[in-house]
Amino acid sequence: MDQNPRAALLVIGNEVLSGRTQDANIKFLATRLGEIGIPLREVRIIPDDRAVIVRTVNEVRAAFDHVFTTGGIGPTHDDITSECIAEAFGVPWEAHPEAWARMAASYKPGEFNAARQRMATMPRGATLIENKVSNAPGFSIGNVHVMAGVPRIMQAMFEALAPTLAGGRPIVSRSLHGQGLLEGRLADALGAIQARHPELDIGSYPFYRPGGNGVAIVAKGTEPAAVEAAAAEVAAMIRGFGIEPVEGEPPA
Amino acid sequence: MDQNPRAALLVIGNEVLSGRTQDANIKFLATRLGEIGIPLREVRIIPDDRAVIVRTVNEVRAAFDHVFTTGGIGPTHDDITSECIAEAFGVPWEAHPEAWARMAASYKPGEFNAARQRMATMPRGATLIENKVSNAPGFSIGNVHVMAGVPRIMQAMFEALAPTLAGGRPIVSRSLHGQGLLEGRLADALGAIQARHPELDIGSYPFYRPGGNGVAIVAKGTEPAAVEAAAAEVAAMIRGFGIEPVEGEPPA
Repeated sequence: MDQNPRAALLVIGNEVLSGRTQDANIKFLATRLGEIGIPLREVRIIPDDRAVIVRTVNEVRAAFDHVFTTGGIGPTHDDITSECIAEAFGVPWEAHPEAWARMAASYKPGEFNAARQRMATMPRGATLIENKVSNAPGFSIGNVHVMAGVPRIMQAMFEALAPTLAGGRPIVSRSLHGQGLLEGRLADALGAIQARHPELDIGSYPFYRPGGNGVAIVAKGTEPAAVEAAAAEVAAMIRGFGIEPVEGEPPA
Repeated sequence: MDQNPRAALLVIGNEVLSGRTQDANIKFLATRLGEIGIPLREVRIIPDDRAVIVRTVNEVRAAFDHVFTTGGIGPTHDDITSECIAEAFGVPWEAHPEAWARMAASYKPGEFNAARQRMATMPRGATLIENKVSNAPGFSIGNVHVMAGVPRIMQAMFEALAPTLAGGRPIVSRSLHGQGLLEGRLADALGAIQARHPELDIGSYPFYRPGGNGVAIVAKGTEPAAVEAAAAEVAAMIRGFGIEPVEGEPPA
């Protein structure tokens, strides 16, 4: 996976940091980015604070190939992502002609007010990300892709954006689990499998279910044959403990 | 809230970044930290990668009053949080006598193997965080508090730790919502309420439900009277749109 482009995600919003809202975007984006070969390597959840947003955007856009942001592009006073992105890039924050024309046409006369006009105001040079759900588009500037926080809207924006991104080899994975497995017993054998496949990420995840406890093992990487080989070794290891390995994740 | 101590959370683990696992710890810690007056101001989700963990720990422990970590303290090869914390602090990673004695006593003869001994190996100077659920403790060193990733265990560790933390004034909040409210219409009036209460965070969150769409408004801060005053202004604003405000969050 080391040759793949790498992504960071900024979740912008006090509501996740205060515990009001359970984030629902990280898992979606993590999964989809893996599928298109741009694995997510860091997430930062930050408040609606101008200095923090500007500094963080500049840190992560320098460190990662792609940066995705969610949240803070609505019409209210706490929606400051767009103007902060302009400040981070050192460009004017100004009416985007195409976004402005589209949004103006979508409201009744007099309803495209100052608050809504903010949603058509973007960093100079931004290109729009389609929004098929509501009428305010997202945008990309440089390697930063600015999307809504509402999951349904974010997902529509991501699917409009994804075909335009130069991805890498998809991340493939295999999961196996065994009831009754104990991490403390399999650690040495699993470490040896990881050592034989340094190009893969092999993870060990205990699970606790009413029907029984156990461990799930996940092997992932960009080389399907290597993932298959590691999975076969994991299956043999599980059988070595007298437990039959089961394909996939343990049932919820 | 500016006088309160401030917290950062590091979620350490490939499983969240790959989309395998929906994080279940952020919301719990965000809520509990607000209650004890140590508001969560940043979350970073990072992979099981030594260089990234060491660098990130050192960045956030310098920038925040408290740092909480979840994940990576089990017995397998991908559990490297503890040794990375030692490296970040520049101290030896060595057997913790008390943790070692407790864990050794909890296993049958011969079962306290090398993998399990890693869970009793900690940065020199660490103080233990009790774990009433399983037998491997967490630990604190400096302002960094290292906890398990399994939610049930993390929560037990946090509740053992919380009374030892010098918190600030609790963050209190009031939520009001109205069906049929539109952010684009209330933005100006809400911005004016925020401007009159600069010591509060006032957030606006649209909701979309089968029963109807609307907006929820949340006012929070450390001064209950100010939160109440802002909530009264929000209620009056909602009534100004001919909509009756409803206490609390919209039903799920």
